[in-house]
Amino acid sequence: MPDGDMSFRLTILGTSSALPTSDRYPTAHVLNVHERLFLIDCGEGTQMQMRRYRIRFGRINHIFISHLHGDHFFGLYPLLSSFNLMGRKTPLHLYAPEPVEDLVSRHLSDFDINLGFELVIHALGSRECTLILNDKRVEVFCFPLRHRIPSYGFLFREKRAERNIIPEMIGKHSLSIAEIGHLKRGEDIVREGGEVVSCESVTIPPPEPVSYAFCSDTAWFPELSEYVRGVDLLYHEATFGDDNEDLAHKTGHSTARHAATVARDAGVKKLVIGHFSARYKTADILEEEARQVFSATEAAREGTSYIVG
Amino acid sequence: MPDGDMSFRLTILGTSSALPTSDRYPTAHVLNVHERLFLIDCGEGTQMQMRRYRIRFGRINHIFISHLHGDHFFGLYPLLSSFNLMGRKTPLHLYAPEPVEDLVSRHLSDFDINLGFELVIHALGSRECTLILNDKRVEVFCFPLRHRIPSYGFLFREKRAERNIIPEMIGKHSLSIAEIGHLKRGEDIVREGGEVVSCESVTIPPPEPVSYAFCSDTAWFPELSEYVRGVDLLYHEATFGDDNEDLAHKTGHSTARHAATVARDAGVKKLVIGHFSARYKTADILEEEARQVFSATEAAREGTSYIVG
Repeated sequence: MPDGDMSFRLTILGTSSALPTSDRYPTAHVLNVHERLFLIDCGEGTQMQMRRYRIRFGRINHIFISHLHGDHFFGLYPLLSSFNLMGRKTPLHLYAPEPVEDLVSRHLSDFDINLGFELVIHALGSRECTLILNDKRVEVFCFPLRHRIPSYGFLFREKRAERNIIPEMIGKHSLSIAEIGHLKRGEDIVREGGEVVSCESVTIPPPEPVSYAFCSDTAWFPELSEYVRGVDLLYHEATFGDDNEDLAHKTGHSTARHAATVARDAGVKKLVIGHFSARYKTADILEEEARQVFSATEAAREGTSYIVG
Repeated sequence: MPDGDMSFRLTILGTSSALPTSDRYPTAHVLNVHERLFLIDCGEGTQMQMRRYRIRFGRINHIFISHLHGDHFFGLYPLLSSFNLMGRKTPLHLYAPEPVEDLVSRHLSDFDINLGFELVIHALGSRECTLILNDKRVEVFCFPLRHRIPSYGFLFREKRAERNIIPEMIGKHSLSIAEIGHLKRGEDIVREGGEVVSCESVTIPPPEPVSYAFCSDTAWFPELSEYVRGVDLLYHEATFGDDNEDLAHKTGHSTARHAATVARDAGVKKLVIGHFSARYKTADILEEEARQVFSATEAAREGTSYIVG
């Protein structure tokens, strides 16, 4: 069976910028790639949002932190504590900018916490687009953003799956396990005696691999669209509207129009914006300004899921 | 006018123990004493709960932290950050066990935060019941609990207000401002010529002062009831039920029955229990076990307010 539509799904846990509001939590996204869950940023209350939206804690083995500002990070320590209390044994991989090791190790020592699982810290420091995780189903890259402190974006590229055997062909051609393996990898079978079972005739191609890019706190810069070229879904922060473009420059943030410019220049399929300043009671104006540049834009909301591909 | 019923009001922001659930947040209480707000413990998500229950950030000038376990503390740094972003200028007083200064100052330096307001840290270290705040309307004491790390309870005692002048008496006796001052303080007036205006005849007594005690994480110990003797409202943690009394001993916590025993022995008027282990889906059994010992017990819920007195 081909994987269903749900195989690459993004859930938004928080859409506020530094100051949360009564209905906006700080940044946290969960990307579900074939039931591997990747947590991206971890603002205060992330674990509460995970419970609210029924994200399975045990499925998270990788956490990516874009930068060490509190609204992207303050949920991490409580989450580590909860993993520990829940008896976690599986290693947890944490990707975050330097000096994350120092911060985390001092925290564990200050609070006298003995983790019952291995915490594998991958410190991000490169100024190039870098492959940081290469897993059976997905490759993850990080790339530098431009903010007041080192900040990184993340790109998740699904790997191309094997071809899918048409079930009734297995009996019809009496396919062996070994033959099925070859066919799924796209190879034709030539049996003793010369019978040919062509891959094309007994398999269907897998769905096209999809991709998601996460652009956290950043000022606009033209090279950014190169890093996220052609992704199916782009998340880009949009802290401000046109009315506060000067503030965006000053604070190292983007306007909704900046985000849409990246989406347009990169030729992405869809743009989701978030990280809204508390001064915007609704994100309507930000969505509207972005759509003037890139129509396939949506303002994120807590709890919304996007099925990619 | 005498102060209304709302002058001493406790609002519960969180009732979970270390592991929050989908409907329980970690410990945080707000005590409103004549519109001075005292925040007591500050688990993750406290600021979100404050927004949800319309607690005015600007009214909080004093924060009390019972002990330095994350579920009582992890909301503090994000709250400080929000105060700063909101442009706070008023000094903020923080009362917490040692080594709170080290933790907070390292945090501010790690995250390169310049607070725009004065943070006055009062480190708690005494093993006696100690007056830590003496304000116009309330006295606050801290007293030692027994937990795995130093942990403190807090006692808030309203001060007796002045007597209230019966308004029509002002005209009837042509009372001067100075005379009113004397009468409110309970003194009779003897005018030149010998006319006596008795305090009893022109004033009514103020409401009886009320008191609230907060007993955070602690094992049961008999002296605890002395610290909270006769309070109007007692909050006491009740992490476990009778079924896990051994675990309560082992982890330095109380059962609901322990909490009720303190309430009964201290002769308090009402007991509220909280800090429920995630293993109890509802607090019904904990409430029931406590009521077997002390009938005026209620299990706390997020957002519930108790008007004291």
